[in-house]
Amino acid sequence: MSEVKKSASTGLRGTSAGATALCTVGKEGAGLTYRGYDVRDLAASTSFEEVAHLLLYGELPTRTQLDGYIKRLQGLRDLPAALKAVLEQIPADAHPMDVMRTGCSMLGNLETEADFSQQLDVVDRMLAVFPSIITYWYRYSHDGVRIDPVTDDVSVGGHFLHLLHGKPASQLHADVMNTSLILYAEHEFNASTFTARVCASTLSDMHSCITGAIGSLRGPLHGGANEAAMEMLERWSDPDEAEQAILGMLERKDKIMGFGHAIYRTSDPRNAVIKEWSRKLADEVGDTTLFPVSERVDEVMWREKKLFPNADFYHASAYHFMGIPTKLFTPIFVMSRLTGWAAHVMEQRENNRIIRPSADYTGPELRPVPPIAERG
Amino acid sequence: MSEVKKSASTGLRGTSAGATALCTVGKEGAGLTYRGYDVRDLAASTSFEEVAHLLLYGELPTRTQLDGYIKRLQGLRDLPAALKAVLEQIPADAHPMDVMRTGCSMLGNLETEADFSQQLDVVDRMLAVFPSIITYWYRYSHDGVRIDPVTDDVSVGGHFLHLLHGKPASQLHADVMNTSLILYAEHEFNASTFTARVCASTLSDMHSCITGAIGSLRGPLHGGANEAAMEMLERWSDPDEAEQAILGMLERKDKIMGFGHAIYRTSDPRNAVIKEWSRKLADEVGDTTLFPVSERVDEVMWREKKLFPNADFYHASAYHFMGIPTKLFTPIFVMSRLTGWAAHVMEQRENNRIIRPSADYTGPELRPVPPIAERG
Repeated sequence: MSEVKKSASTGLRGTSAGATALCTVGKEGAGLTYRGYDVRDLAASTSFEEVAHLLLYGELPTRTQLDGYIKRLQGLRDLPAALKAVLEQIPADAHPMDVMRTGCSMLGNLETEADFSQQLDVVDRMLAVFPSIITYWYRYSHDGVRIDPVTDDVSVGGHFLHLLHGKPASQLHADVMNTSLILYAEHEFNASTFTARVCASTLSDMHSCITGAIGSLRGPLHGGANEAAMEMLERWSDPDEAEQAILGMLERKDKIMGFGHAIYRTSDPRNAVIKEWSRKLADEVGDTTLFPVSERVDEVMWREKKLFPNADFYHASAYHFMGIPTKLFTPIFVMSRLTGWAAHVMEQRENNRIIRPSADYTGPELRPVPPIAERG
Repeated sequence: MSEVKKSASTGLRGTSAGATALCTVGKEGAGLTYRGYDVRDLAASTSFEEVAHLLLYGELPTRTQLDGYIKRLQGLRDLPAALKAVLEQIPADAHPMDVMRTGCSMLGNLETEADFSQQLDVVDRMLAVFPSIITYWYRYSHDGVRIDPVTDDVSVGGHFLHLLHGKPASQLHADVMNTSLILYAEHEFNASTFTARVCASTLSDMHSCITGAIGSLRGPLHGGANEAAMEMLERWSDPDEAEQAILGMLERKDKIMGFGHAIYRTSDPRNAVIKEWSRKLADEVGDTTLFPVSERVDEVMWREKKLFPNADFYHASAYHFMGIPTKLFTPIFVMSRLTGWAAHVMEQRENNRIIRPSADYTGPELRPVPPIAERG
């Protein structure tokens, strides 16, 4: 029985569930790679659209390919009328991840993937339209405004900020969104990606796979750590107050969001990148609270527990400085990780067998059905 | 490399992904059990509502519990106005499984599971309302009728047939639906159930787990075999024609739907049960084609290939005799399997660790990012 329980709680840790050419996580000498490229190199010198092309089409684009790809995505940003009507039915207090899940699922009714030859078209459409979906719902339900979801912004991140704020983003903000979308794009067989692959293994359609993945990313053990970090950080008005509070939380063994990682052991390669962008944004807005508080928490966690900030921690302040409401942080994760999910779905389809594990039975032995009068 | 490929294509077959007290499949002496009861015994002497209670609440209900449960489900059949409005936006040519997925996801926006103490309430609501969702969309999109989804039928199956046909079902038809819903209710760690458990392992909400499972059941390697069997069977106008066609298909190594099973080796314990109900329905409607054709295909497959019909094969004719459109067969599977999915989600939550397997990397080694001008 104890052996069975052990099996139940291991969560397939360390068990290979398949092969991938997309990503390495925590491999020696390279913290995180997408198709062999270090994520820090990609963040330093490419755009999210180049990374999307890399993950979905297999290689970084040439200049001509990139120009064509950007133009293509720009042309796919409008929402079908029926999808707008659905988004208008979703109340303002809905969970934004439920909105994303429903928007993606509804799109599947209107623009169904009829066969796998359409897979890249379907994914490009999602990549272009996901920012439209979340901001259309947000602005309609919160401000009563029916936005026009079509913009001529070059980037996915710029398009999102433009729709959210009703004006084009500054170059700095577009650059930060770009980096953020690159950092979150892919992470091997995490739970949401694995959800997408299990769904893909039944040869289901792309919208089903991505809808399922969104549902898994919604879980507090998976996406949402940057939202939780933000909610924690904004409680404190200066670094000393934050330090006292953190020491108290550590003493009470409270969970402190945005630190440590299931796979990385000494640092999260994405952290240094987003931290520097958050520092630049703090300078831009003249922040003297949130960034210093974040840095102090970072120092205290290292000093006391040798725990390092993961990718989510400085994302909280970075997004906040750009005026993004906290509850939209995880939907941004969706806009980015969509590229990884879809690349995994296509890879699963290429060499598929249905994913159907076994289970250890712990229930009652075979027994007769008692007549209803003899139960209880 | 060949070892990696092997791993990629095994689909976790034979690998335990956790413990369950809900079900055994293909265990010696008992083909399929739900919490220790043989599915054939349950089909012979209980109602689907009793089986739902068994799976969700842990035990078969007493008479008082069952009366209360039926009354409770009867009170949960109405659709919120916003959900009706969403269903009216979905076109008649949509895939009915996309409708179920979207209906479930939309419900999650309107009646969100705020914390796990609400899990049984949320599931009972789905159990009562799923037939309303699919028939409301079907009748509106196909017949232009806005049905009232509230009926006083005792059973989930009767409620479904009543809404679909606009009149109460005969006792025979309600009995067949009842049996069918019992047979499909639960099947251990199949791909859709495993999808629900992976999602649950992130501590996501019930609507996300069930929405994801619906998406996986949609895949042609999973749900949908009874639809495919029906499409095949209705091509033939008599048993001899069917026999010739099947022999030709076997020679060409075409896939013949509704035969064999990944786990059962000598027979599917659900087959004999549904076959007898299909025979009764054939007698009732005076059928002289579909049932004899089905029986002949059954005989030929056993004679030629020693392949036995699975649960799906005689479901095709049974559903057809009750006037159910073929494209609604898999949504009925959803109404039933919901109980198994939800029971697994609750079980996962009780002893959870996030499900996060590893992968074998087959991609390029670490490489520098080439400047865009040097690519291609």
